[in-house]
Amino acid sequence: MTLEEMGRRAKAAAGELNITGVTEKNRGLEAVAEALVRERTWLLRENEKDMEAGRAAGMKSGLLDRLQLTDARIESMAEGLRQIAGLEDPVGEVISMKKRPNGLLIGKKRVPLGVIGIIYESRPNVTADAFGLCFKTGNAVILKGGSDAICSNMAITKVIRDALEAEGLNPDSVQLLEDTSRETTNRMMKLNQYIDVLIPRGGAGLIQAVVNNSTIPVIETGTGNCHIYVDETADLDMAVNIIMNAKTQRVGVCNACESLVIHQAVMEKLMEKLAERLREKHVEIRGDEAVCKAVSDAVLATEEDWGKEYLDYMISAKTVSSVDEAISHINRYNTGHSEAIITESYTNAQKFLDEVDAAAVYVNASTRFTDGFEFGFGAEIGISTQKLHARGPMGLEALTTVKYIIYGNGQIRS
Amino acid sequence: MTLEEMGRRAKAAAGELNITGVTEKNRGLEAVAEALVRERTWLLRENEKDMEAGRAAGMKSGLLDRLQLTDARIESMAEGLRQIAGLEDPVGEVISMKKRPNGLLIGKKRVPLGVIGIIYESRPNVTADAFGLCFKTGNAVILKGGSDAICSNMAITKVIRDALEAEGLNPDSVQLLEDTSRETTNRMMKLNQYIDVLIPRGGAGLIQAVVNNSTIPVIETGTGNCHIYVDETADLDMAVNIIMNAKTQRVGVCNACESLVIHQAVMEKLMEKLAERLREKHVEIRGDEAVCKAVSDAVLATEEDWGKEYLDYMISAKTVSSVDEAISHINRYNTGHSEAIITESYTNAQKFLDEVDAAAVYVNASTRFTDGFEFGFGAEIGISTQKLHARGPMGLEALTTVKYIIYGNGQIRS
Repeated sequence: MTLEEMGRRAKAAAGELNITGVTEKNRGLEAVAEALVRERTWLLRENEKDMEAGRAAGMKSGLLDRLQLTDARIESMAEGLRQIAGLEDPVGEVISMKKRPNGLLIGKKRVPLGVIGIIYESRPNVTADAFGLCFKTGNAVILKGGSDAICSNMAITKVIRDALEAEGLNPDSVQLLEDTSRETTNRMMKLNQYIDVLIPRGGAGLIQAVVNNSTIPVIETGTGNCHIYVDETADLDMAVNIIMNAKTQRVGVCNACESLVIHQAVMEKLMEKLAERLREKHVEIRGDEAVCKAVSDAVLATEEDWGKEYLDYMISAKTVSSVDEAISHINRYNTGHSEAIITESYTNAQKFLDEVDAAAVYVNASTRFTDGFEFGFGAEIGISTQKLHARGPMGLEALTTVKYIIYGNGQIRS
Repeated sequence: MTLEEMGRRAKAAAGELNITGVTEKNRGLEAVAEALVRERTWLLRENEKDMEAGRAAGMKSGLLDRLQLTDARIESMAEGLRQIAGLEDPVGEVISMKKRPNGLLIGKKRVPLGVIGIIYESRPNVTADAFGLCFKTGNAVILKGGSDAICSNMAITKVIRDALEAEGLNPDSVQLLEDTSRETTNRMMKLNQYIDVLIPRGGAGLIQAVVNNSTIPVIETGTGNCHIYVDETADLDMAVNIIMNAKTQRVGVCNACESLVIHQAVMEKLMEKLAERLREKHVEIRGDEAVCKAVSDAVLATEEDWGKEYLDYMISAKTVSSVDEAISHINRYNTGHSEAIITESYTNAQKFLDEVDAAAVYVNASTRFTDGFEFGFGAEIGISTQKLHARGPMGLEALTTVKYIIYGNGQIRS
């Protein structure tokens, strides 16, 4: 099937989904969840083909682990779909409706985006997850997964399509690009006629490639060089507690803390408490000269360290002489994700919230909370670090747009 | 000055604007309005240089007219800025704030986008207008106007910058690209480090070039192939009245009607009333076979006519046998702008509102109302025909984004 034909089918499916009620959509999600569990033996067999190819190609164990399906992972995919079925459907809500002086009644209604393209990497569970989020919000989706996971993704997609069809729902609500070549992917990124929005899900390289090549609007999810600023007035025990959580609770995630900014008045006292705790967790400190003087085993930071998302057991540490210097350092090096201040000063807290340019700005809490579930959205498509359409954790609403509906009785413009 | 230096300055100015109160911003807008009127003799002289160059290059009279400044046009630019000063500032509003079970208080606050790039064509008044909208919403702006209007744009920008500086406001809130070459413009479209959003304002060619070349997120304003569907149950006098308004009140605008879709049961009766009225206004009808049979001087439409935005005294006309056929024709050929149904049927009205995929969908009213002022926004940046971030007429809110502000008291994630 050509890409254009897939686009036409997706658009037709989107038209049907647009007028499918939430009860039918939830029935579809439940049926797919059930089918994934029922077909697990076959799914595992298809996944094993990808695993074998991966092993033969010398794929690293971390990547092989991401690629692998297990009974538990299939159950967890199914459970994810059931949870999505349980969420409120944002589609159809009329957000506002006002009468104009000429009698026109103008309403603003939440509607599906239409056709969403999702480009992702090795984890096959994204196939079910992306389908679920798009389907719940009445969008058709064209998926392009990694070539490493092609057998798994084809199998999961087939199970989803068959289950939808058995429920009398349009299977073209989800389609998978079977040709995962770069050339076809690039053509997909220019299919403006059929695809309304592209969402890349994966590492920084993938996201950058989509941003650079797509002519379709992109919802960009991004990297997090997250800072914690320890103010002069901070409760240092709270600061240590929050830093340890934000740095070490999970190091490979975008809302983990990568950089400390510390007021010079409390730097030595903080480090007395913090350095040992970091050492216990084998976290290397890359500090400026003052920090290196205070912490014997700290390594001198280079300019590059200030802008780096380590995703590893490392943290940079910079000393500043004021909250203003802290804010300006953060606004220079951050990636617009999550930033925190630890302070007891009302003025500095409000100033930090006002002036730091990021999706989520915290006072006295861990940056690790930037997450759709923690924010109470019930689902997460990703965390947007750009400013258009959605910023920060994106729930189901990020997969909708609005439409103006206008009731008249013969009005013409004069 | 290099583009990167302009970017750095814009980012610094955006940081200042972000914490500038609405009173100061309004004072700046009023001061600029006054300065434009005060400096009008000089502005007219600089504009005359562009006019002379245009005449020498054989520019058409329509384009020369767009390029020309007059006392009245300068007064109207100033008046536009005063009106923007009078509008409510969307920035700073906390749209929602909720306490999570763990005690985190999570708020969603409206904030400026940051740095906006605007790429536009010949009309020099856009320079003042774009500045005003961006400044009011706390955004710094980098302007790239047409090379035809370079002297006018440089003069207007100088007046704005001087007036801001005299008020103690950062003149880098507005900067103009003096090098309007394609190469520099293309580099501007990839300045992701400094520019948060690009807005092209102008014809379809300009907008397409920006969409195709920009790696910065684009707010796309678009063309309008707007349809009016005359249903079987329509009040035909109302239909004629609305069609004449939507087609002929102003033909060169994106919300003008370009295409009729008519239920076969009322086509002949409608045309009896409508054809003569269109003839009086010298509007050519491009109809399908049935329409050509009913209207002696109609021209047979080709496939191309159905998708065409004429912006001229022409209208296409297609006969259908049901509201479903009308909706599917419209969804195939429209550009997602404005579509109307004329009907007395409750069911068909609701069906049309639900199923037509466009920014604005009307029952019994002219498509000409799709406009920021008519919608009550008090200002208009453009009309978005894409689905991300903003759809339909865009007011000041479209120039803002949100930021999550989170108040904690030591929360860590478990």
